[in-house]
Amino acid sequence: MFTLTVRDHMMIAHSFRGEIFGPAQGVHGATYVVDVTFERERLDEDNLVVDIGLAATVLHEVLAEFNLKNLDDVPEFHGRNTTTEFMAWVVFGRMADAIREGRLGAGARELTGLTVELHESHVARARYHGPL
Amino acid sequence: MFTLTVRDHMMIAHSFRGEIFGPAQGVHGATYVVDVTFERERLDEDNLVVDIGLAATVLHEVLAEFNLKNLDDVPEFHGRNTTTEFMAWVVFGRMADAIREGRLGAGARELTGLTVELHESHVARARYHGPL
Amino acid sequence: MFTLTVRDHMMIAHSFRGEIFGPAQGVHGATYVVDVTFERERLDEDNLVVDIGLAATVLHEVLAEFNLKNLDDVPEFHGRNTTTEFMAWVVFGRMADAIREGRLGAGARELTGLTVELHESHVARARYHGPL
Amino acid sequence: MFTLTVRDHMMIAHSFRGEIFGPAQGVHGATYVVDVTFERERLDEDNLVVDIGLAATVLHEVLAEFNLKNLDDVPEFHGRNTTTEFMAWVVFGRMADAIREGRLGAGARELTGLTVELHESHVARARYHGPL
Amino acid sequence: MFTLTVRDHMMIAHSFRGEIFGPAQGVHGATYVVDVTFERERLDEDNLVVDIGLAATVLHEVLAEFNLKNLDDVPEFHGRNTTTEFMAWVVFGRMADAIREGRLGAGARELTGLTVELHESHVARARYHGPL
Amino acid sequence: MFTLTVRDHMMIAHSFRGEIFGPAQGVHGATYVVDVTFERERLDEDNLVVDIGLAATVLHEVLAEFNLKNLDDVPEFHGRNTTTEFMAWVVFGRMADAIREGRLGAGARELTGLTVELHESHVARARYHGPL
Repeated sequence: MFTLTVRDHMMIAHSFRGEIFGPAQGVHGATYVVDVTFERERLDEDNLVVDIGLAATVLHEVLAEFNLKNLDDVPEFHGRNTTTEFMAWVVFGRMADAIREGRLGAGARELTGLTVELHESHVARARYHGPL
Repeated sequence: MFTLTVRDHMMIAHSFRGEIFGPAQGVHGATYVVDVTFERERLDEDNLVVDIGLAATVLHEVLAEFNLKNLDDVPEFHGRNTTTEFMAWVVFGRMADAIREGRLGAGARELTGLTVELHESHVARARYHGPL
Repeated sequence: MFTLTVRDHMMIAHSFRGEIFGPAQGVHGATYVVDVTFERERLDEDNLVVDIGLAATVLHEVLAEFNLKNLDDVPEFHGRNTTTEFMAWVVFGRMADAIREGRLGAGARELTGLTVELHESHVARARYHGPL
Repeated sequence: MFTLTVRDHMMIAHSFRGEIFGPAQGVHGATYVVDVTFERERLDEDNLVVDIGLAATVLHEVLAEFNLKNLDDVPEFHGRNTTTEFMAWVVFGRMADAIREGRLGAGARELTGLTVELHESHVARARYHGPL
Repeated sequence: MFTLTVRDHMMIAHSFRGEIFGPAQGVHGATYVVDVTFERERLDEDNLVVDIGLAATVLHEVLAEFNLKNLDDVPEFHGRNTTTEFMAWVVFGRMADAIREGRLGAGARELTGLTVELHESHVARARYHGPL
Repeated sequence: MFTLTVRDHMMIAHSFRGEIFGPAQGVHGATYVVDVTFERERLDEDNLVVDIGLAATVLHEVLAEFNLKNLDDVPEFHGRNTTTEFMAWVVFGRMADAIREGRLGAGARELTGLTVELHESHVARARYHGPL
């Protein structure tokens, strides 16, 4: 299996609900360095997994929806804890939609899986992997 | 599948037995930067894979058993080569025990797999992955 | 000249005032991975720049004042933009105070300079360096 | 499952054919930082996945075939786009051959899989994984 | 003193003249991950070293002049070895010009120094530092 | 000023004397990832700070003296604490000697300064810088 990974980042604020979060129940924030990995069984006729330029552009567009925002103000997330692992799943969904809509090119429909990993610091990161 | 990874480290001495090890048959040492990755099919009701605070605390406790030690002096390892890959397996076992004992919280029993990766330098690392 | 560097991090929310900040005028956040570098002309009798255990403990205490907070709510920062470069200077001040108060040990008074570097992402970081 | 990873690099020139490559159709170049990961179900009697010294030596020999070359001049690649993902597959093939030829030691024949990952920058990398 | 650092990259081909270069006398290539560090004695009224958005944009423009090129084809470099250390100096010159031309904003004229560091692999990098 | 940096590593055991070291008074170990930075005011006629091949070779030879050793067994270090900062100074001395002896080429005598940085983990490192 082949994979291609591109990296970008977003800087967000949020707060969590639930005693398990301790002081993180208050408003704080994070830089998420985001790695998106595209999977494919065979390369296309250009020897590509996916057009890396389109991949980087679409990832940047997806993250722009959240970058420099307070996630507590995003209606879709009301009543949800926007943990690192949850946000990995959110970015996965946005990227999967973009692929289905053809925003990564027609060939991207041959992709079989996707991994989104968010690094929240030098000592912690979370990932969501799923099929396409 | 969701994963969460936490990082810590330990600094140990050891020696190896067997001609294949060449000069590493003498007493030398290593810093192991340790990444433990917890796997889970679905997030819990707080949108977590595992309580990251407990995960970091338990990993630190597990590594404290070996940190700043000469592994040649640990009875459990007598007659065993404490290679990087072997120590990944040892840390895996300790973390799996901690999960079963409830030290990472009741919800951690929903974890389905674990990966332990030890970085021994900027050019070498080893990993053990297994189900829980 | 000798230096010793220790690393820790903090996760904060904040907003900026001024058109130059564009969308960063809204509440957002950052993970700051913080490197503090201690400078000294000669090592002490133990061959140390500073007690690394104390250095890590004091840095953690200094960052705990800000970690998991919204910096907009910190009275000391009212009317100030808590940019990465500014926060590097703030951490510098706290660490310099700690050194003067003897919290890094009596020998730490031989330190001659300090650098605080905050990494805000994989593509941006800021630093303050000054004498002690 | 156990894995061991070793890292090395190569610095190459090449050009691509196809409009999708835009300005990369001209001669340009890349540093590929190469991670090769060896997989094995059980450790050998020395507690090793593979002899790390042999692994590093063979990887260096494999990369020497391409390092400091213009890949456009390599007959084997005529008419092929030497993308990062393609070169990951090429290095995989060379390493798999070396394992079969016994160049990583007799025990290396117990290896069950191999991953080759090429980092082309701080924001992009590609990987090929296959069984042995 | 305060500094701010931004990172980008370029992927180039080139060849060297002189026996000291050995096989690097042939056409090969490199990814240069480029860190530009801006120095300033005091922050401006917005608590900035320099507008990080402008800094990243101008760096990207400067590198675009070389990115995806064969440096052997750049007239300015004829008869010069475009080593990593030389290219650090070239990028320094371009960035210093941009600052003088006001492309990083009027306030950037308060900058006192600049460092350009090019990482050519995980084991080698070169830097040029000069006053402004 | 120009600099060039090369990286290598060594894996050593040692123990410390003095209550300040706590549990590190016992035999333990470290991987030191070593960065050596060569400084020079002007490039040579080949546009080099120093021959990078020679620099890497000599650094490897210098580290081979300590790699895979127990530093407690090195006569030169008897009665000395081989802390990270001390070992940075030791490597500095060996590299400076090599430069004076011409092992980095005749041109290396134009070098004006040297920095040796030892990374002992992902959260700690130490450095010695001096003129040549």
